[in-house]
Amino acid sequence: MLLRDAWYIAAWADEISGEQPLARRICNEPIVLFRDGTGRAAALADRCCHRAAPLSMGIVVEEGIQCGYHGLIIDGSGRCVRIPGQKQIPADARVQSYRAVEKDRLVWVWMGNPAKADTAGIVDFPYHNDPGKWPNKHDVYPIKANYMLMVDNLMDLTHLGYLHAKTVGGNPAAHVEAEMKTVRTPTGVKFTRWMRNSVPPPTYVKAAGFKGRVDRWQEFEFVAPSSVLQWTGAADTGAGAYEGKRDGGFQFRLFHGLTPETETSCYYFWSVANGYRQDEPEATEQLYQEIAPTFVEDRVMVEAQQARMSELGEAGLVDIASDATRMQMRRMVERLIAGEQTGNAAE
Amino acid sequence: MLLRDAWYIAAWADEISGEQPLARRICNEPIVLFRDGTGRAAALADRCCHRAAPLSMGIVVEEGIQCGYHGLIIDGSGRCVRIPGQKQIPADARVQSYRAVEKDRLVWVWMGNPAKADTAGIVDFPYHNDPGKWPNKHDVYPIKANYMLMVDNLMDLTHLGYLHAKTVGGNPAAHVEAEMKTVRTPTGVKFTRWMRNSVPPPTYVKAAGFKGRVDRWQEFEFVAPSSVLQWTGAADTGAGAYEGKRDGGFQFRLFHGLTPETETSCYYFWSVANGYRQDEPEATEQLYQEIAPTFVEDRVMVEAQQARMSELGEAGLVDIASDATRMQMRRMVERLIAGEQTGNAAE
Amino acid sequence: MLLRDAWYIAAWADEISGEQPLARRICNEPIVLFRDGTGRAAALADRCCHRAAPLSMGIVVEEGIQCGYHGLIIDGSGRCVRIPGQKQIPADARVQSYRAVEKDRLVWVWMGNPAKADTAGIVDFPYHNDPGKWPNKHDVYPIKANYMLMVDNLMDLTHLGYLHAKTVGGNPAAHVEAEMKTVRTPTGVKFTRWMRNSVPPPTYVKAAGFKGRVDRWQEFEFVAPSSVLQWTGAADTGAGAYEGKRDGGFQFRLFHGLTPETETSCYYFWSVANGYRQDEPEATEQLYQEIAPTFVEDRVMVEAQQARMSELGEAGLVDIASDATRMQMRRMVERLIAGEQTGNAAE
Repeated sequence: MLLRDAWYIAAWADEISGEQPLARRICNEPIVLFRDGTGRAAALADRCCHRAAPLSMGIVVEEGIQCGYHGLIIDGSGRCVRIPGQKQIPADARVQSYRAVEKDRLVWVWMGNPAKADTAGIVDFPYHNDPGKWPNKHDVYPIKANYMLMVDNLMDLTHLGYLHAKTVGGNPAAHVEAEMKTVRTPTGVKFTRWMRNSVPPPTYVKAAGFKGRVDRWQEFEFVAPSSVLQWTGAADTGAGAYEGKRDGGFQFRLFHGLTPETETSCYYFWSVANGYRQDEPEATEQLYQEIAPTFVEDRVMVEAQQARMSELGEAGLVDIASDATRMQMRRMVERLIAGEQTGNAAE
Repeated sequence: MLLRDAWYIAAWADEISGEQPLARRICNEPIVLFRDGTGRAAALADRCCHRAAPLSMGIVVEEGIQCGYHGLIIDGSGRCVRIPGQKQIPADARVQSYRAVEKDRLVWVWMGNPAKADTAGIVDFPYHNDPGKWPNKHDVYPIKANYMLMVDNLMDLTHLGYLHAKTVGGNPAAHVEAEMKTVRTPTGVKFTRWMRNSVPPPTYVKAAGFKGRVDRWQEFEFVAPSSVLQWTGAADTGAGAYEGKRDGGFQFRLFHGLTPETETSCYYFWSVANGYRQDEPEATEQLYQEIAPTFVEDRVMVEAQQARMSELGEAGLVDIASDATRMQMRRMVERLIAGEQTGNAAE
Repeated sequence: MLLRDAWYIAAWADEISGEQPLARRICNEPIVLFRDGTGRAAALADRCCHRAAPLSMGIVVEEGIQCGYHGLIIDGSGRCVRIPGQKQIPADARVQSYRAVEKDRLVWVWMGNPAKADTAGIVDFPYHNDPGKWPNKHDVYPIKANYMLMVDNLMDLTHLGYLHAKTVGGNPAAHVEAEMKTVRTPTGVKFTRWMRNSVPPPTYVKAAGFKGRVDRWQEFEFVAPSSVLQWTGAADTGAGAYEGKRDGGFQFRLFHGLTPETETSCYYFWSVANGYRQDEPEATEQLYQEIAPTFVEDRVMVEAQQARMSELGEAGLVDIASDATRMQMRRMVERLIAGEQTGNAAE
């Protein structure tokens, strides 16, 4: 059961440009994304209302998107505005449209009940707009697993020491024994892990030149249903980071946004924003190059996990201590789904 | 629902020769094609009556086709005529056979009720046999779409200006505004489009050396259920082509034959016969090289169209003015299918 | 319907070693194979009891197998013996285990009712352990066909002259007309084919230097449900081989073991043991290189046969004289399946 009354990321803003439209599948519906004459992002069902050709095989024109088969033009609202060789346009020549909103370099869509589409619910991530202080780089990975398995992944970091043992993981025990604080937020749940007075990983030393032990933090804010805002860093032990002074030192922010493609596949939109040596583009690039392979490791694992769950279900599985935050997250999403069912039933 | 009481093209005659049989799937039945000892084309179910091995993995021998697994030989009528190591051949050692007829360099099969297989219903295309006047070249493309979508494609030429914009399409408006005459025929429907007093496409100029404007025609004869005979050409404006004098100038004929492989895939048999500069083989070759890529464009589009129809159906689609002939064609095929259902029910 | 109360080969013993576990699918259940701290082979369901990750993506450690996702360790009996960051291990943290037994360089598993797992029923093939007298080499081929189709293949050797016409087949008539004796055994059926006073195949001449005609034998012992022990050789005509003196000359033994992966796929474990020129490793290698391609020919055929049977079933197929032993074999396996159904129903 996919939650539909939610803002999902359809694309990075810079993926939608020019004459070429972009095809995506969200909540198992094929959609086409393009910008109308004014530059505003639009999202339509990716099926022409004439003979069902995918509009994404057409081209973007001044009035909208032109089907590549027989030349019909559909505007950003889904209305057919031109039929070659025909003056009258039938009123039912329409394509399903979806609300699309651009914010912080991302284009979000609402696949559910339009009456409930409140843009106030779209996640804030202003760092994408602040390349001076937070130079950043982004990507999107297709993943053959339910999007919640990727959120699970981010809510239980004990996997770092095993799945990422050869990349960012380092010492498993350090991760498992990290100090952990979890708080509810109005839109989700946030946990902060501290590895105080710990040996910095080699990459941190290389990046920030630490001479001795550090206080290291990882803050993960889950925003329902499927965004995770991460803030990670380290400072010299005792320099006050734990008490709140987290400027300087080594730090970066990661944005993780998961969008359901189907019940068993998703898009993983992610970015890294570099909070140190901001005037050195190679520092941001290096961070990106270090992080990208770990997400590929996640992908391989959750895809295998999905395959097993699809075949064998979840009967007989046990929850362990490190699942606590993950389960809190899951209950929130389940409440949203239950609410959507009830709300739509009431209408 | 596939029409079965119909002659479908199984292969080009020259595809069936020598020791190697040919495997095809028609109306979702695997069949094997080969020539018997007398050279006559035969079509059998592609499953040995012993252990179900595909006969198409065997070899053609004097008496018929020999299974490549245990050596049984089946003749062109489907009768087992040899079982290695066994004198007596059981009467039920038989393979389903289909009527196969060779005509105009094509091998046609009848997959339906044998009692209705009247060879008079096989399409005439004598140009294939007249290499002096109509030097020709042929091919077959596998297409992952219902065969009717390809017939649709040929019945609405307004797609030329969009789908083939970069190849043969040229000016979209010219195609949309062409003068169009449609007439019923005993076996289908025929339409002729005239672009009179028009600028010839560059390829026409290059081929035929036109100095000024031309009268250009496209004649498409649909023969139910799935053949389209095309005659295309141009002559100097006012030279009488419109009135019937179509010799000389630039002209060619295309044969389009669609055979259902499954409900959602087909074979596209096509040929081009060159009606000008017939003694220059490079003129025919050049025509072939120009046309082939446009059929690949058609293939890509109808395959995408099929994918959308398979997933989302056709609910909500609208017909437009240019669909008129296409819809006439569709109604004819639907009547044939309805007749087949009624007729078979009556038996 | 797959027989489950049977010993099936899970792997060659040398496939299971080191830190890397081995993933297989047997009777349509994903399993993971590894050796525990004492070197004993273990077989578990390939799904971690925490979050369903495949254990085969983990690593082998002293205490068992460690999941590659969150680090849980499962021992060879399926018990979870370690959960990172947690002292108490819940009693229901368990993974399904299967009985695994190593014998004659093969690891066998029992996928059925554990109460019936009697190791006395595991096939003997001591030649694997006798590299001095029977130097041998082995392999495993994945095959997309029901395992019984491969046993069928081995029970009707008339296919040699057709399917293997270009490799080991030679003269079809010689195979079809071979003298054949079939006897029941306590665990299956055994047939011996003699081609007495026959021209030896070129490969035999090359291998053993025959000067004239030979007495050639093929002994195939089927051990239910899916092993076939083959002994093949030739000696100078009249030298007494037919009467029992089969030492010397040219001979080799093949082991064929089929394990069902799914209803329509299997593993083909096979080995060749060389019974002549045993001190020349290149003789064994040459034998292996000659036999391997013929098994690829079998694979291609039975996969095509499976595809036809999956689509069209077996209605209308006829049995022929050469099917006699094959049908005897099939009836034995059907009796075992019927017995399993009855036995399990009675419990």
